[in-house]
Amino acid sequence: MRSPAKHRRPKHTLGNAPGTIKYMGNREGDAQYISVTDYKENYINVQEFTSIEKVFTYRDTDTVSLIDIQGLNKEKEIEKLGKYFQINPLVLEDLVNTNQRPKVDEYEDYIFCVLKSVSLSASNKVITEHVAIILFKNSVLLFQEVENTVFDGVRRRISSEHGRIRYKECDYLYFALIDAIIDQYFVVLEDITDRIEYLEDQLYNHPSSGIVNEIQNIRKEIIDLRKNVLPVREISARLVNTEHKLIGDDTKLFLGDVHDHSVQIHETLEMLREMSMSLMEMYMSTVTIKMNEIMKVLTIMTSIFIPLTFITGIYGMNFHQIPGLQSEFGFYIVLGLMFFILILLLVYFKTKRWI
Amino acid sequence: MRSPAKHRRPKHTLGNAPGTIKYMGNREGDAQYISVTDYKENYINVQEFTSIEKVFTYRDTDTVSLIDIQGLNKEKEIEKLGKYFQINPLVLEDLVNTNQRPKVDEYEDYIFCVLKSVSLSASNKVITEHVAIILFKNSVLLFQEVENTVFDGVRRRISSEHGRIRYKECDYLYFALIDAIIDQYFVVLEDITDRIEYLEDQLYNHPSSGIVNEIQNIRKEIIDLRKNVLPVREISARLVNTEHKLIGDDTKLFLGDVHDHSVQIHETLEMLREMSMSLMEMYMSTVTIKMNEIMKVLTIMTSIFIPLTFITGIYGMNFHQIPGLQSEFGFYIVLGLMFFILILLLVYFKTKRWI
Amino acid sequence: MRSPAKHRRPKHTLGNAPGTIKYMGNREGDAQYISVTDYKENYINVQEFTSIEKVFTYRDTDTVSLIDIQGLNKEKEIEKLGKYFQINPLVLEDLVNTNQRPKVDEYEDYIFCVLKSVSLSASNKVITEHVAIILFKNSVLLFQEVENTVFDGVRRRISSEHGRIRYKECDYLYFALIDAIIDQYFVVLEDITDRIEYLEDQLYNHPSSGIVNEIQNIRKEIIDLRKNVLPVREISARLVNTEHKLIGDDTKLFLGDVHDHSVQIHETLEMLREMSMSLMEMYMSTVTIKMNEIMKVLTIMTSIFIPLTFITGIYGMNFHQIPGLQSEFGFYIVLGLMFFILILLLVYFKTKRWI
Amino acid sequence: MRSPAKHRRPKHTLGNAPGTIKYMGNREGDAQYISVTDYKENYINVQEFTSIEKVFTYRDTDTVSLIDIQGLNKEKEIEKLGKYFQINPLVLEDLVNTNQRPKVDEYEDYIFCVLKSVSLSASNKVITEHVAIILFKNSVLLFQEVENTVFDGVRRRISSEHGRIRYKECDYLYFALIDAIIDQYFVVLEDITDRIEYLEDQLYNHPSSGIVNEIQNIRKEIIDLRKNVLPVREISARLVNTEHKLIGDDTKLFLGDVHDHSVQIHETLEMLREMSMSLMEMYMSTVTIKMNEIMKVLTIMTSIFIPLTFITGIYGMNFHQIPGLQSEFGFYIVLGLMFFILILLLVYFKTKRWI
Amino acid sequence: MRSPAKHRRPKHTLGNAPGTIKYMGNREGDAQYISVTDYKENYINVQEFTSIEKVFTYRDTDTVSLIDIQGLNKEKEIEKLGKYFQINPLVLEDLVNTNQRPKVDEYEDYIFCVLKSVSLSASNKVITEHVAIILFKNSVLLFQEVENTVFDGVRRRISSEHGRIRYKECDYLYFALIDAIIDQYFVVLEDITDRIEYLEDQLYNHPSSGIVNEIQNIRKEIIDLRKNVLPVREISARLVNTEHKLIGDDTKLFLGDVHDHSVQIHETLEMLREMSMSLMEMYMSTVTIKMNEIMKVLTIMTSIFIPLTFITGIYGMNFHQIPGLQSEFGFYIVLGLMFFILILLLVYFKTKRWI
Repeated sequence: MRSPAKHRRPKHTLGNAPGTIKYMGNREGDAQYISVTDYKENYINVQEFTSIEKVFTYRDTDTVSLIDIQGLNKEKEIEKLGKYFQINPLVLEDLVNTNQRPKVDEYEDYIFCVLKSVSLSASNKVITEHVAIILFKNSVLLFQEVENTVFDGVRRRISSEHGRIRYKECDYLYFALIDAIIDQYFVVLEDITDRIEYLEDQLYNHPSSGIVNEIQNIRKEIIDLRKNVLPVREISARLVNTEHKLIGDDTKLFLGDVHDHSVQIHETLEMLREMSMSLMEMYMSTVTIKMNEIMKVLTIMTSIFIPLTFITGIYGMNFHQIPGLQSEFGFYIVLGLMFFILILLLVYFKTKRWI
Repeated sequence: MRSPAKHRRPKHTLGNAPGTIKYMGNREGDAQYISVTDYKENYINVQEFTSIEKVFTYRDTDTVSLIDIQGLNKEKEIEKLGKYFQINPLVLEDLVNTNQRPKVDEYEDYIFCVLKSVSLSASNKVITEHVAIILFKNSVLLFQEVENTVFDGVRRRISSEHGRIRYKECDYLYFALIDAIIDQYFVVLEDITDRIEYLEDQLYNHPSSGIVNEIQNIRKEIIDLRKNVLPVREISARLVNTEHKLIGDDTKLFLGDVHDHSVQIHETLEMLREMSMSLMEMYMSTVTIKMNEIMKVLTIMTSIFIPLTFITGIYGMNFHQIPGLQSEFGFYIVLGLMFFILILLLVYFKTKRWI
Repeated sequence: MRSPAKHRRPKHTLGNAPGTIKYMGNREGDAQYISVTDYKENYINVQEFTSIEKVFTYRDTDTVSLIDIQGLNKEKEIEKLGKYFQINPLVLEDLVNTNQRPKVDEYEDYIFCVLKSVSLSASNKVITEHVAIILFKNSVLLFQEVENTVFDGVRRRISSEHGRIRYKECDYLYFALIDAIIDQYFVVLEDITDRIEYLEDQLYNHPSSGIVNEIQNIRKEIIDLRKNVLPVREISARLVNTEHKLIGDDTKLFLGDVHDHSVQIHETLEMLREMSMSLMEMYMSTVTIKMNEIMKVLTIMTSIFIPLTFITGIYGMNFHQIPGLQSEFGFYIVLGLMFFILILLLVYFKTKRWI
Repeated sequence: MRSPAKHRRPKHTLGNAPGTIKYMGNREGDAQYISVTDYKENYINVQEFTSIEKVFTYRDTDTVSLIDIQGLNKEKEIEKLGKYFQINPLVLEDLVNTNQRPKVDEYEDYIFCVLKSVSLSASNKVITEHVAIILFKNSVLLFQEVENTVFDGVRRRISSEHGRIRYKECDYLYFALIDAIIDQYFVVLEDITDRIEYLEDQLYNHPSSGIVNEIQNIRKEIIDLRKNVLPVREISARLVNTEHKLIGDDTKLFLGDVHDHSVQIHETLEMLREMSMSLMEMYMSTVTIKMNEIMKVLTIMTSIFIPLTFITGIYGMNFHQIPGLQSEFGFYIVLGLMFFILILLLVYFKTKRWI
Repeated sequence: MRSPAKHRRPKHTLGNAPGTIKYMGNREGDAQYISVTDYKENYINVQEFTSIEKVFTYRDTDTVSLIDIQGLNKEKEIEKLGKYFQINPLVLEDLVNTNQRPKVDEYEDYIFCVLKSVSLSASNKVITEHVAIILFKNSVLLFQEVENTVFDGVRRRISSEHGRIRYKECDYLYFALIDAIIDQYFVVLEDITDRIEYLEDQLYNHPSSGIVNEIQNIRKEIIDLRKNVLPVREISARLVNTEHKLIGDDTKLFLGDVHDHSVQIHETLEMLREMSMSLMEMYMSTVTIKMNEIMKVLTIMTSIFIPLTFITGIYGMNFHQIPGLQSEFGFYIVLGLMFFILILLLVYFKTKRWI
């Protein structure tokens, strides 16, 4: 099993100068996919390109341009883009560094933020993807490693002629992308909650040792999600209070909503964490209680039959002179004695509430 | 068993534009119930309506109007209301979103807050209800999913001719509604305390494994309540310090009291949580101590009778030549030996304080 | 056993308007006792009254007047007092609400504070009493449920002709009363410390399962004390930094001392809590270690005698042809074999350090 | 065993007026020892006195005077001193109150601080001593209960003709005394670390139940040290940022170093606490793992020999007609059967990885 | 095993005046190694010296000079250096004090910081080294105990003709050195993560008691790393916000990146800590579950064979008159009875889900 830890910075980057653009992911062979969605109120144009230079023209158009770059392994291309858009090399480094912690950096002409989008795989594993977004005056640059269904809703709203998004500026698009990522966290949390509830049911009905592994897996996922959610809370808090010229007051209201959601996600995570810990504790108490029961059965069985067997042993000895062996009723008297001892022991265990 | 988790945002809302008014609860078939309680010092008028438009006239009257809307599934109606009262779409979205975390938002002409009212069902389960309240200059809008007995006291005070509430403005009514919700938390906490005390008694007198489930249920309820109470603390703190024109200094004094109560509820919750954890720990220690006792009985019984049985085994062997078998006193000598061993073992266990 | 939880707000108060003066305690039948201690440098006059109106004259005298009202169940009387002294109804409500959390509220003409005095009953239980104190310019109102020995020291110092308190204003009396309450916490903490130390001794010498209950009782008392001490810390911090005209700079110095003490009490409580938890942990480890020892005895006894008994069983079988049965030395050879096995097993257990 | 708790304020002080000078320690019969070390750059004079009045002259000399008073039980003498040096009665109260929590109080003409010096006794117990220091313009008053080797280093540096301390003012002496106390904490921490490391070694090589007591003792010492160290952190932080005229900028730099050390001590304490808890956990896991091993031996022995003994029992029954008893090979066949069962069971336990 | 605790301040330093330059490490016999790397855009000169005086000339050159001093045991030499560079004695003390906690101190003409570099030894142990760096206007002083490969990358970038570092000032070099240290932490964290993942795998496949020691070792390493990382977070935060003339705005941007990394390291450490605790918990639950299984086998074996053996005992008694002994089918009837009891017990255990 792979641990979800994503903090790695591979050894060969050590010694590189800061600002060196070095892709850190593991999709090095993939091709790059570039598309631009250019729109305003009554106009929309979606185009795909193979060369990065084609998108340069969209920097200065009056329309809102969503420039979508999938594949971060082409460091050269990204460097060219960075040069044209006058992006700080440190930003470019963080952009392709798939281990970068979520963060927001405000520069004079643009706002850069790194986020982690989450989604559920077919086998219900949480998949975390690195997403970087840069807001310019007339365009939004969106960087991802692979195509991500997270943004499908935003694209659909852009396509729709009467979508509010068509009447708004770039900052609203920027917000809409972040909001789409945050929304996905709710889906993942819902899934974890379902699994915890299922385990709870299992625990009541068919407790098995597999539950421990399941609970530990959930805890690891929660630890991992928390690592990504905590910075999101800071990011949204900062965007709400930003003085940056690119973010309008109107959009700040919407960003306040995003902040509310990230706070809610964080609190839910803490709640799920506490629930998973309480579940684990409960399972362990189930195990201990069961062990008690097992021990009780063992003790009762042993305590009853060991003394009785001892008595049979006495009369099984081969002494020539054991009183009662010749007696006609000896056997029955001994049986009676055993029965009496049995009753005594049962009463004793009853008093102790063991049976 | 259903987990009390309420953080869900159903999947089909993903991709909706923010500000989309989408009911999130599960009472979709219910009819809407609308009533208005209009009053001033010497006048009161309670009316029920079936159409939302009828309440519009109450926005601008000089009297205090409590506009009570039960049923949040009629998104269209609420949108109409929102348009007439000029309520921000984001507010309308939160209003019908029954998963919305408690919060307060101040707008220029109104103050919006979401709270969770709690009450006890017939079977003593905690029922949480979504409540949204909007304070305007001359009216208070109250949104609920179903009729809620929580506000009966407020309504009674309004009806009473000499109630102080009749001499006060809308902000006092706003406070009275929030205060009524907070007060209910005390009832629920009282119930949880009673249950913890009952479990404590049980633990001393009839410890049974059912206690674990009971404790875990209480812990889940506490986790769930805390999720709702924590934001209330923030909300009341913020309302006390608000500079909003709609909240008078007089009412702030009363809101200070609400804040005191929410702090007290929060501290009590923490105390109950610690008590439930201490109860669990105590139960587990009871189980362990009991296991010790069981093991002691097993060990004493086994340690005494196994060596004795071994001796009977020796003299039960069929060797032709075992010394003593022919002796007249052989049997009694062996019995005496066994008795001696028994005494030795009892002394040993006495020394170890096991008996 | 009664839980020490005191957060209850009885159900019948729900729906009351805020500011309703409603006694919450359980001493409803008690008579009210009113006394006034009026003093200045060279004058002292102690009087008892049966009617509340008699104390009104002391509001405006130049002397310092300690107005002591015992019994909070006479709501009418307290309302009259409140009206004459122009006390806010919210204050009167908190005053008789014995469930009110400790707090301080500053009004223009007076400072109101609620505290919980603690003392030890004859059977060493912690008794918590509700105390409310209002500081006016020329008088201090002291409200209690019953007579409380906590303030005996203050009264004695007032009676003494050369007591510093006689040369000071009302604010010093106010401080002296609070200081007297805080001082009592040290007595209670001392008692808890003694009990923890006693349990520690017990644990070393005569560990018994009763210790668990004792530890849990101490923990509950600590939880309960903490609930009362935490707000006291806030209260004293606030009084030290107050800008209120009624509190002189001189008295603030003394209040700083009270604050120091409340911090020290809080830290000691945390320390005692940690000590009680460590004690519990130690007891449980004692139990586990003991169980280990018990299991060892069981295992050694069983492992030695079960194989030996098996051997006696072999030679106890009734086969006509078992080699050695007829031999003269058969019995001794088998005994020798058993002895050899015994030695082997003892060496094995020695190697494992079990014996 | 005595608990290290030192928070006691004996009962007979209750009811005393604040500012009452009442010694709280338990060295009431001791004589007082007074000495003055008076020095400047090129002059030093050490004198011992028996009467407190003799030191009064040193208040106003131009030289730096370290006035060292050992024995706090002579309340009268200290009151005289307090009167001459114009020290606030509250300060005098805290000075002789050996239960006083470490603190610093700034007055116009002097700075008062209480600290706890620690040292190791011959038997490696931590000894805590109450130390109070008052900084005046031209003298430093040092109050202790007994002679304390902690300050030997400072005295030696004063004696040395070329010590930097001789060229500095009173505030540097004040710092040097505090620094000497803080330095001693490192010695105690070093000792605790050594003991934890020793226990770790023991745990690996000769785990015994005595380790539990040792760990608990260490935890209690850590709890106790933390109580004294936490306020020291506040004190040093406050002295670094003080605006008091008596503390020069130069000395603040040195006090910054003291603050660094107190932070480091605090962090080390937290680390030691975590290490001791981890040690305890590890010991308990060792016990549980050992129990597992014991149970395994018991189960294997029992599971193997109980069925075999049962078989011998079958052929030991006295039925006249048991098939095979007469057979020549019966005995060997049954032995073979037993051997086969033995092999089966061993394979089973091997599969389960129990052997 | 050596504990990783590094807080020691050896006893013989007690009583030393603050500012005394006293080496605290354990490499007292080592020779000192001094080298200077002097460079600007188009010039580079690396030289080694044996005498400290040789480096003095580099203080005031226009070029950037990295003065690298390995070996802190030559207190005299360092004092000379300190005197020439006008470094505060307190700085010199901290510089050679290998127990000094990481910190940054800003002086008028230089900025001093202490850090701990980490690296992995051949046997994968974490090695912590004391590093002190002083930034002057035209030179950076780097103090280490031994040669450290941590800075190899920086040296390589300086050597490279087109490295950005060659075009920058001293503050950038200062940043580059700190960045190189921080980067190494990622390598160590990666190693710990790998080990935790490996243990996880082990736990699933071959749980053995050695895992406990491994987990405890990891926890100790995490405790130790945290002690060094926590102050680094403060240091980087402070350098980002510094107003010091020596740090340019450009470099602050890079230092912001260092701060991001130190935050990420800290969070990862917390995550690893939680993972290691969860691993421990999981191992202990594995042990408990296994014990349950063992007990089940023991109980089943015992409960089945003890009653059956008892029955054989009955018919093994030597009474002359036991009914059935003479019967031809007696033996088979008893065998049948035993089989019936066996079935009953198996059904019972099946009902209890033990088999």
